[in-house]
Amino acid sequence: MCGIVGIHNHPEASNIAYLCLYAQQHRGQESTGIVSSDKGIFHQHKAMGLVADSFDSTRIKSLAGRNAIGHVRYSTAGSSSIENSQPFVVSARGEQLALAHNGNLTNALELRKRLEEDGAIFQSTMDSEVIMHLIARERGKTLVDRIAGALRKVEGAYSLVFLSDGVMIAARDPRGFRPLVIGQIGDAYVAASETCALDLIDATIMREVRPGEIVLFEQGGMRSYDALVDGKNKKAHCIFEYIYFARPDSHIFDRDVYTIRKGFGRQLAKEHPVDADLVIPVPDSGVPAAIGYAQEAGIPFEMGLIRNHYVGRTFIEPTSEIRHFGVRIKLNPVKELLAGKRIVVIDDSIVRGTTSMKIVKMLRRAGAKEVHMRISSPPTCWPCFYGIDTPTRRELIAAKQSVKEIREFLTADSLGYLSRDGLYCFEKKGEREWFCDACFTGEYPVDLVDSPDIMEQAMEARRGC
Amino acid sequence: MCGIVGIHNHPEASNIAYLCLYAQQHRGQESTGIVSSDKGIFHQHKAMGLVADSFDSTRIKSLAGRNAIGHVRYSTAGSSSIENSQPFVVSARGEQLALAHNGNLTNALELRKRLEEDGAIFQSTMDSEVIMHLIARERGKTLVDRIAGALRKVEGAYSLVFLSDGVMIAARDPRGFRPLVIGQIGDAYVAASETCALDLIDATIMREVRPGEIVLFEQGGMRSYDALVDGKNKKAHCIFEYIYFARPDSHIFDRDVYTIRKGFGRQLAKEHPVDADLVIPVPDSGVPAAIGYAQEAGIPFEMGLIRNHYVGRTFIEPTSEIRHFGVRIKLNPVKELLAGKRIVVIDDSIVRGTTSMKIVKMLRRAGAKEVHMRISSPPTCWPCFYGIDTPTRRELIAAKQSVKEIREFLTADSLGYLSRDGLYCFEKKGEREWFCDACFTGEYPVDLVDSPDIMEQAMEARRGC
Amino acid sequence: MCGIVGIHNHPEASNIAYLCLYAQQHRGQESTGIVSSDKGIFHQHKAMGLVADSFDSTRIKSLAGRNAIGHVRYSTAGSSSIENSQPFVVSARGEQLALAHNGNLTNALELRKRLEEDGAIFQSTMDSEVIMHLIARERGKTLVDRIAGALRKVEGAYSLVFLSDGVMIAARDPRGFRPLVIGQIGDAYVAASETCALDLIDATIMREVRPGEIVLFEQGGMRSYDALVDGKNKKAHCIFEYIYFARPDSHIFDRDVYTIRKGFGRQLAKEHPVDADLVIPVPDSGVPAAIGYAQEAGIPFEMGLIRNHYVGRTFIEPTSEIRHFGVRIKLNPVKELLAGKRIVVIDDSIVRGTTSMKIVKMLRRAGAKEVHMRISSPPTCWPCFYGIDTPTRRELIAAKQSVKEIREFLTADSLGYLSRDGLYCFEKKGEREWFCDACFTGEYPVDLVDSPDIMEQAMEARRGC
Amino acid sequence: MCGIVGIHNHPEASNIAYLCLYAQQHRGQESTGIVSSDKGIFHQHKAMGLVADSFDSTRIKSLAGRNAIGHVRYSTAGSSSIENSQPFVVSARGEQLALAHNGNLTNALELRKRLEEDGAIFQSTMDSEVIMHLIARERGKTLVDRIAGALRKVEGAYSLVFLSDGVMIAARDPRGFRPLVIGQIGDAYVAASETCALDLIDATIMREVRPGEIVLFEQGGMRSYDALVDGKNKKAHCIFEYIYFARPDSHIFDRDVYTIRKGFGRQLAKEHPVDADLVIPVPDSGVPAAIGYAQEAGIPFEMGLIRNHYVGRTFIEPTSEIRHFGVRIKLNPVKELLAGKRIVVIDDSIVRGTTSMKIVKMLRRAGAKEVHMRISSPPTCWPCFYGIDTPTRRELIAAKQSVKEIREFLTADSLGYLSRDGLYCFEKKGEREWFCDACFTGEYPVDLVDSPDIMEQAMEARRGC
Repeated sequence: MCGIVGIHNHPEASNIAYLCLYAQQHRGQESTGIVSSDKGIFHQHKAMGLVADSFDSTRIKSLAGRNAIGHVRYSTAGSSSIENSQPFVVSARGEQLALAHNGNLTNALELRKRLEEDGAIFQSTMDSEVIMHLIARERGKTLVDRIAGALRKVEGAYSLVFLSDGVMIAARDPRGFRPLVIGQIGDAYVAASETCALDLIDATIMREVRPGEIVLFEQGGMRSYDALVDGKNKKAHCIFEYIYFARPDSHIFDRDVYTIRKGFGRQLAKEHPVDADLVIPVPDSGVPAAIGYAQEAGIPFEMGLIRNHYVGRTFIEPTSEIRHFGVRIKLNPVKELLAGKRIVVIDDSIVRGTTSMKIVKMLRRAGAKEVHMRISSPPTCWPCFYGIDTPTRRELIAAKQSVKEIREFLTADSLGYLSRDGLYCFEKKGEREWFCDACFTGEYPVDLVDSPDIMEQAMEARRGC
Repeated sequence: MCGIVGIHNHPEASNIAYLCLYAQQHRGQESTGIVSSDKGIFHQHKAMGLVADSFDSTRIKSLAGRNAIGHVRYSTAGSSSIENSQPFVVSARGEQLALAHNGNLTNALELRKRLEEDGAIFQSTMDSEVIMHLIARERGKTLVDRIAGALRKVEGAYSLVFLSDGVMIAARDPRGFRPLVIGQIGDAYVAASETCALDLIDATIMREVRPGEIVLFEQGGMRSYDALVDGKNKKAHCIFEYIYFARPDSHIFDRDVYTIRKGFGRQLAKEHPVDADLVIPVPDSGVPAAIGYAQEAGIPFEMGLIRNHYVGRTFIEPTSEIRHFGVRIKLNPVKELLAGKRIVVIDDSIVRGTTSMKIVKMLRRAGAKEVHMRISSPPTCWPCFYGIDTPTRRELIAAKQSVKEIREFLTADSLGYLSRDGLYCFEKKGEREWFCDACFTGEYPVDLVDSPDIMEQAMEARRGC
Repeated sequence: MCGIVGIHNHPEASNIAYLCLYAQQHRGQESTGIVSSDKGIFHQHKAMGLVADSFDSTRIKSLAGRNAIGHVRYSTAGSSSIENSQPFVVSARGEQLALAHNGNLTNALELRKRLEEDGAIFQSTMDSEVIMHLIARERGKTLVDRIAGALRKVEGAYSLVFLSDGVMIAARDPRGFRPLVIGQIGDAYVAASETCALDLIDATIMREVRPGEIVLFEQGGMRSYDALVDGKNKKAHCIFEYIYFARPDSHIFDRDVYTIRKGFGRQLAKEHPVDADLVIPVPDSGVPAAIGYAQEAGIPFEMGLIRNHYVGRTFIEPTSEIRHFGVRIKLNPVKELLAGKRIVVIDDSIVRGTTSMKIVKMLRRAGAKEVHMRISSPPTCWPCFYGIDTPTRRELIAAKQSVKEIREFLTADSLGYLSRDGLYCFEKKGEREWFCDACFTGEYPVDLVDSPDIMEQAMEARRGC
Repeated sequence: MCGIVGIHNHPEASNIAYLCLYAQQHRGQESTGIVSSDKGIFHQHKAMGLVADSFDSTRIKSLAGRNAIGHVRYSTAGSSSIENSQPFVVSARGEQLALAHNGNLTNALELRKRLEEDGAIFQSTMDSEVIMHLIARERGKTLVDRIAGALRKVEGAYSLVFLSDGVMIAARDPRGFRPLVIGQIGDAYVAASETCALDLIDATIMREVRPGEIVLFEQGGMRSYDALVDGKNKKAHCIFEYIYFARPDSHIFDRDVYTIRKGFGRQLAKEHPVDADLVIPVPDSGVPAAIGYAQEAGIPFEMGLIRNHYVGRTFIEPTSEIRHFGVRIKLNPVKELLAGKRIVVIDDSIVRGTTSMKIVKMLRRAGAKEVHMRISSPPTCWPCFYGIDTPTRRELIAAKQSVKEIREFLTADSLGYLSRDGLYCFEKKGEREWFCDACFTGEYPVDLVDSPDIMEQAMEARRGC
């Protein structure tokens, strides 16, 4: 889970990059970086932490040039270090090249093994480094040729921006797992993960980079190459971007996230109605679905849980001597509102189940008479290998337990998940197959070369179903 | 605007203080500090910035002892420096004493002048330092006597916690401007500005410190002194805590903030109804009132503006060459939701008017057909001298312009403020006079010794009305 | 042990202060600070650590104004904190006043007790804060009057610079314990602890501030007040500044430090000659005396011990599992030079004796055949109360043991201290009584009000001798 | 100019590395780093700045394992960044490998070009990265084989330590340009640039790594491979290590640095005697030569220039409005000592000439009657390509001007350089040809593949001479 941005032909390219990263901060809070290119010289700054804390105006000024790319990275255990921050800058075949990557390759280990056998050295544990090695080994005439050649060898999910001397390039895998959108601001072009980044800088939104497309931004112009499109032409947009990951004010995969999310709530109300006094969301991600549920069900919507947004990077958990506060650090119930009421609480998904269980208990202690948990997506049974940071299958509660068992674990009065069909309530023309919903179905649209065991399990499971 | 906390008789007092400050971070983000007392030794740490960024577990451990007080401070221009951070620690009459203060004194300059004339030296520009000097000059036998003697000399708003060797003391001005509540956790006592702090640590909420009361926590026990109560016995709770400042999940001045705020919205719908398609809040403060308005008016509630919560301390504004983004940094509209719709937008107050104007324009650019601004409080005409950080009277748009003129400035289709009577819709038994609403009325309940000109203007204005 | 500087009427006063502090860094490495005054506004920056690490050009520029004072502070256990760093800034009687202090008061505790009884509050543990309180309580008409009045109440050692609006003031105690010199650079005046600071900025050295003198720098001019001179008129310059503390290129108490120190070495050679092959110093402080000894004795001088100057602030001592390296971290012998040789090693003083013992052993392990320790001062038997950071009497090896016993402890072949008479070899006209040598003699020239027990012991000891 | 260290089989390997880097801080102050290996896991920390400021005990503890290597790096303009700090860690052929390098390759650009053409990507501008690529491309069976194969392809100067899982390897180029010594401490082995590092940890000094030797430390043992020795067998020890770079207490190239340096001074006195009153060094590097000169000439030695050692990393130069202080920041003359005297001042070398000129002028202003500059090395006419950071030839004053012209530029009364023959006064058996003195002679012992123009010039010059 990451956010990326690329700017071409703007006098303050790094400042634009900064603002777009800031708008996409929800896509990754671990580390951030910007690289700019100025008359053949690359300038870069990378840091652990939030965008707004990592750059100041002196720093931004030092990142001179009309072209820049930037990155925000999500925290995943173990690999949290400045070496793994992006953009990734190398010198290859006599020229400098930088890369920012959102997504996850499914054959990176396999490729890395082969590259190391062939004498390549790796300085990070990022799959993105594999892409750079492949490009360097391509013999194509143009940079676009070499990038295309390299990307044809990798599998999985990638939305990419590249920076070369005076040139910015955007590329997206043939399935279009992750979003990538292009906008214009004056004479400049901007590519970003989400439209909310373009909104912040008042750019005009042009269109998404097409799955399998490479877009070259050079000398103030833009040229398109459908270089990665394969015969199958099957899209696999990540449905989880709609459910949870993207910002609700973004417009991705040609639809409004807020509207989709609210639709999930409406559908959920149809599938799992319940006699209740209040509908409350788990903020912030559950808000649109809760509004949808409330409207459909005709039950009042309330903000019954208040979220503390000041969770800093170094927040220290209370010692066990004090007690285990669970979700209390982030959420606090509005007691007077809940006391004696029958509550429908809406969340986007259940991963391990422990957080949901604590929320149910917290609501009961606040006086709720009944707590009905409603989830605006189907049970999460399979890990994601295309860029969403999910735990291993063994940790996913829905991989091991039935809905009934989960309800018992949560101590909820009732539990309702959105159905797999209900998930596609938003589409009318059979576009359902254009989405990746492997986390619910185990139907992985791209081979898991590096994780054959999971692939195997998923196939067996579907046969079994 | 500040938040305070004091702990007595807890083995991890500084850790409890840390958690309570974290829960009250909304009351001040500029600086923070904790002082603990351990067998006669004081330990302290103060820092600029957020609570979660200022302490780590090593630091917390170094703040040993069973008693501690803490403070978060709001940023006010000019005085932003570590010298002005709290708690404030001094040695006086052979013993150490620390103080954390929420509120603002109205005769501090006058007192300071007299103290300086009498040979006192000041090391900060905080009015809180005046309190310490007065205590040191008292001749009372006990610390409570000396504190009481000193506080009888100051005027204005103060909720205070003191730390002495093994002792924690809480005190509140006779009008009770700012909240201060007491809770229990095991054998320990905790005093905090808001109940949301007590909720986080799972403390039992006992009661508010009474206006004019000094509460001594010593040797595991609690003793009350109504030492500051004067004959008039008139309360002046800050109505703005209800409107904007307190967290919605807090319970202050014996009422639920969320419920009050939602009631303002309902009342506003009665006073200023309008034919519209959607009701949206300016998040986060406008949410409960918007829900109330929507419910009363029977118009759908939507989160039409999305807020970015990652505004770090050092966020650099875009250069003017790029453009002036206004509120875009914090808020982004959900376009599809708004397009072609008649919108009611709910905010808690209008100060200078520029932010509201930008929101109206932003909504129109997002496609709104009509924009009706509704404010869940009366026009803010007078500056606050009791601890809310408002600009000078000359900067308050409602001090100079009529509602009609303000509507024109905002470019809104209509504008409705909550009436002064409507503001008290929540009370039934004539408690209206127990609140300070000077920001709307100019009826300052405590003399502005240091600002006689404003006092004069307010009196004239009321005579004029 | 501290270094101070004050500048009047220079367009870049804070930059000049910075350079002078840098030149005086040897007088204190714990913390540093500069305060400037610009049209009635004070600007300040204080930090823990070295001058060169604490300021950058942005910081210096922010310290605007034509007047400034600065301070470097020596690390003494327990009180190492930013609260105790200087300059010390207060508001008193309606105006701001800053102070930087070198020296130590001997009746500070007594005065503090009285001030606290009278209602004063203290925010630090520095004796310098006492001075500020006294000034604030003076009723004199002019600032100089009030400073004079206050200083007449304190006893002990102080060289001071004050900063007020547009005004810089330098003052020195009536005994002149610590140095303080005045220079001119263009239209500006500079007061500093040592001449090496004036050398760095190419200032013309005018003269020392006289013992008991207050010098007012105002409106580009300088005016002198012999306000603190008492009838006794007895000087008590610290002889230890000559022996160890001042920089060898400084000229203080009207003499060259290098020449004095070399003279100590010559005298030592006369008093304690020995048949040897090499004379080596303990660098850096022992160098001039070793050159003097070598020249007088006709024995070759060599740099037989090499010092590592890169000892940073946070140097971590090796774990005891590795071993206790003693002085090895700072000093390493030149083995080939020492092997088989009879060595005279010169140090300025012996405090606890452990360092000297380790040096003797290190030289023997490097192959020295004989090690003769020579000390360019008499045995240090008494702690200093006038500003030199010495341990308690109980820790001073010479307070408890005879020279013979110390030699045995050091495992040296011989040990020779400079005699008390030899210490004054540099003076011809009976100026001996103008120096304080209490650390050797126990003859404390100013009453130790706060330490009556030591005073008692010293008197007894002298009676006993 | 760098310093390196490697440890094998010590329970606190990273702590030992820390101490050895600290002792070698004079070899580089820009950046530092340590990598340790613990049961197959590498731990690393790199930072800009001094060793003592970059590590604390928590950090050292986190660098677990019985094997470690470390590096200090000298500041050279342009490439000062964390990306260029060492040790350099990569994953190659399935295993992790780390490298620390002292020296400079002369065919790095050529090799890099070829490697990039072959598809290699570079992430730094360090020549050391070339070595890693070459190793990764070797097909040898053992790591030593692959290292040997790679090093046979590089030319120039390199002393190296490698870290692999449980293994430490030291290697030195066939000419032995830079020092590298092995010691033992308990069951552990330590390789370091200089013996002063081994002294600090009380290790037993075993021997130097031989030119062309690779030493493998594995399973507590040590095995030697003369893998890089070529037929020519010609050593080329850097004579500048003796003149200036190594610490005087180190023993390198089988000789004592202090003794050699003092010998240069004696020889200089023979070659360039002068009637004078005092001999003074430019501290610290000129001290031993000045002592030698003084002893040979029978003129008193004095420390006439005092050096300020507190030059921090961020020292801000005074603004030009104040004045250009030149060397005053670092050096200050002892005026009384110099006044009216004829001074011989000894420095180790003259690079651009501006510093020496400022020293001469400073001495005159301090009152010196005559200033005779003596340099303990021949004129520096050629840049170094083997690891000493010298400016370009065009900036070297001796490359363009005669000794007479230089004397005039310096405004010295006389100027004497050590002769090329005199430089080898320390050797008796024709070992002169075992040293590289290309900086004086232009006789570059290893081809400058990347700098053919300088090679050309040098050959012409020698033909011309």
